[in-house]
Amino acid sequence: MLARDTVEVTRLPLCRVLLMKDRRFPWLVLVPERSGVREICELAPADRAALVEEIAQASEVMRLLFRPDKLNIGALGNLVPQLHVHVVARATSDSAWPGPVWGSGAPLPYTEDVLADLRRHLAHAFGPPQRTSWRSSLLARLRRPSP
Amino acid sequence: MLARDTVEVTRLPLCRVLLMKDRRFPWLVLVPERSGVREICELAPADRAALVEEIAQASEVMRLLFRPDKLNIGALGNLVPQLHVHVVARATSDSAWPGPVWGSGAPLPYTEDVLADLRRHLAHAFGPPQRTSWRSSLLARLRRPSP
Repeated sequence: MLARDTVEVTRLPLCRVLLMKDRRFPWLVLVPERSGVREICELAPADRAALVEEIAQASEVMRLLFRPDKLNIGALGNLVPQLHVHVVARATSDSAWPGPVWGSGAPLPYTEDVLADLRRHLAHAFGPPQRTSWRSSLLARLRRPSP
Repeated sequence: MLARDTVEVTRLPLCRVLLMKDRRFPWLVLVPERSGVREICELAPADRAALVEEIAQASEVMRLLFRPDKLNIGALGNLVPQLHVHVVARATSDSAWPGPVWGSGAPLPYTEDVLADLRRHLAHAFGPPQRTSWRSSLLARLRRPSP
């Protein structure tokens, strides 16, 4: 579900950062790369500390790019069990205000060029990816032609 | 609004812990005692680290007392600007599942004796209050008869 509804923006030390494909709201999703974790309290304390810093970083990126009236941060997971944290830039003029975005109507898609632009601006605001995950690094090694 | 809809359960190093007076959902609200702060990213890094630990502690208390199917954590603040974090114990059988609790129908009050019991059980699960806020300590000193 997350894979279908999002595109990847960047990778931070703990989380993959995804952008929700819904132009009604600037909406990021942080996914800690820890398998089998459903709740914040199941993360190790060091990962929790990293998570809150990455939430703050994503918040600053949203403020810089979208000047929101309010940020909405949420870890719900009622539909997608793997732990993920929503960081949503809200405007008092958006279609769900002052209610939550979750469960509010149907997503409106971006055009492909707007999505590509937005993704690039977001990635730039986060700075260079801070880590290669073991999975991508494994895949890269597997794909490398043998000597 | 928070004052009208909640009762205080305990105080942690950073946050006051409130219980929402809504028997549809076991629902805590953590309020960092930092005036003028609206967003997680406005807290100092040490306060952010304390906040995520207090979210984890509140999550464990909810798990212990309510055995939820899922926890929902949220910092929205669309209606009440002061930073506060919801920690809600969700059941797949609750009236809002799988939607969010925010904006979902009207609260159902606890009876006074149930509310008092619940508050006591929660306070016990959190352990003794870990701090006297400067405000209560100032008030206590002001109220003390002069020597």
